[in-house]
Amino acid sequence: MKTSIKQNTTAPSEEKINTFSKANQHNDPKKEQYTQEEKTKQRLSKIKHKIAIISGKGGVGKSTVTANLAMAFATQGHKVGVLDADIHGPCIPKMLGLKGQTIQGNPTGEFTPVTGRLGIKVASMDFLLKNDETPVIWRGPLKMRLIQQFIADVAWGDLDYLFIDLPPGTGDEPLSVMQLIPDMDGVIIVTMPSEVSEAVVKKSVTFSKQIGIPIIGIIENFSGYVCPDCGKKVDIFQSGGGKRIAKDLSVSFLGSIPIDPKICLDSDSGVSFITQNPKIPSAKSFNEIVAKITLFLKQYGRVAN
Amino acid sequence: MKTSIKQNTTAPSEEKINTFSKANQHNDPKKEQYTQEEKTKQRLSKIKHKIAIISGKGGVGKSTVTANLAMAFATQGHKVGVLDADIHGPCIPKMLGLKGQTIQGNPTGEFTPVTGRLGIKVASMDFLLKNDETPVIWRGPLKMRLIQQFIADVAWGDLDYLFIDLPPGTGDEPLSVMQLIPDMDGVIIVTMPSEVSEAVVKKSVTFSKQIGIPIIGIIENFSGYVCPDCGKKVDIFQSGGGKRIAKDLSVSFLGSIPIDPKICLDSDSGVSFITQNPKIPSAKSFNEIVAKITLFLKQYGRVAN
Repeated sequence: MKTSIKQNTTAPSEEKINTFSKANQHNDPKKEQYTQEEKTKQRLSKIKHKIAIISGKGGVGKSTVTANLAMAFATQGHKVGVLDADIHGPCIPKMLGLKGQTIQGNPTGEFTPVTGRLGIKVASMDFLLKNDETPVIWRGPLKMRLIQQFIADVAWGDLDYLFIDLPPGTGDEPLSVMQLIPDMDGVIIVTMPSEVSEAVVKKSVTFSKQIGIPIIGIIENFSGYVCPDCGKKVDIFQSGGGKRIAKDLSVSFLGSIPIDPKICLDSDSGVSFITQNPKIPSAKSFNEIVAKITLFLKQYGRVAN
Repeated sequence: MKTSIKQNTTAPSEEKINTFSKANQHNDPKKEQYTQEEKTKQRLSKIKHKIAIISGKGGVGKSTVTANLAMAFATQGHKVGVLDADIHGPCIPKMLGLKGQTIQGNPTGEFTPVTGRLGIKVASMDFLLKNDETPVIWRGPLKMRLIQQFIADVAWGDLDYLFIDLPPGTGDEPLSVMQLIPDMDGVIIVTMPSEVSEAVVKKSVTFSKQIGIPIIGIIENFSGYVCPDCGKKVDIFQSGGGKRIAKDLSVSFLGSIPIDPKICLDSDSGVSFITQNPKIPSAKSFNEIVAKITLFLKQYGRVAN
């Protein structure tokens, strides 16, 4: 018998943490922690590549990039999962057309991820909230615990790629994910070209270097805008910042994605702009980025098993 | 004799917390907490209006709005301060032309905020970092402590307005600020028009309602783009979402700010687009927003003293 874990997390409710099934409950917290760690290791051992998508600043299109990377690799026939580690503003379900779905659990304490188009498996806080208006008013320790549950208690099965969408900054969630997944292949850093963003993205690079996670490369999003009416290109948020930072900090530059209203429309509709609009410049850039990531993983990937 | 508190916060260094001067150190943590609370109350009692700027999602231009609100009110002759509570990605100093400045402290444990154009006083994590590349790899409790220090230990003096720029989401920083400043006049919620953002901004509205902070209103940023060459208006990120949410959730709508490359250029240069480019549609919209906020504060403001 399946039990829904969709529940009321309206807060300020640090007590109202997810009541996962009784199979996970121990009276001894140390034993519980040990069990969770073992389960985390087991789950991760079946996932070949783990890639985190990070950014210093929010709103640079990190979730859009994550969702489209997942769809690009799934289109190639790979088994793909997405862990949405943005607890306060989970956007992945919407972008993969999975809004309103619920994660299902069974009495053995295992939860089935929501599966979308192309077989993409997804775990997200969004699947645990009763509606869009429900905020998750949680401090760090609860977020750490949920992220661990998203790895240890979700039946990911065998995957070729797990993409982890992290909230911006270098606080609790990125730290937790990096600690929980020590054999991460690497991080992809998404930025936009304004100078203000430039200042912030450098922090992401230093963060990754300091905690010893390989940097797959930097993607510059919102890179210039071509008026669909007259063809005039305008650098709304300036341009070239991503490439400059990559050079300055000796990090790979994966590519620029020009602004296109179709990307926003497709993201809002939960489809991939690279398959819906393959001829727009943004889709071409994105495919080149996918090729570069594949090359990186072939050369430097830390394949599990 | 003044002592610089500019210091190395390269991490992962949860231990390396700011060593504020010895006057603040107590052997008794309870006594220290009591002293900090008393000092916080005293500082806040001299500040007439406290307004937090929040957003569900990052990258919606929250810091741009905060910096320009500060400049707008300072231009009117008011005494204005800005508390940059975004610990991981502090952008306020750059936007107010104060990059590279350092907060100075004296042996009595009081710190002088950095003062910019129009006498705007600013406290920001950025003033404590040795360079842009330094990430602040901190979990919640350390961030809470720093934010409290930014209120209690900084010599704000008499202010008419204190604007608090919060990082996106409903986690540690917004919770800490709301707890530390119980007599907040209200929050301003910044959003952008995409549906994905719409889903997330609703959480901010519920958050504010649940913790009992008045909502001054919603601002929709990045609302359509007018090609400077041909005049064609394109809704890059769609439009009207902010107004719709405001209506749905019975919250005031303060106005829309159209996309304009001049805003990004001015923010990067640390000047106000409303004074540099007063004739562009975005500046006109912004001034109308300022008028609405003033009206709200006259009607519902919680003036200290």
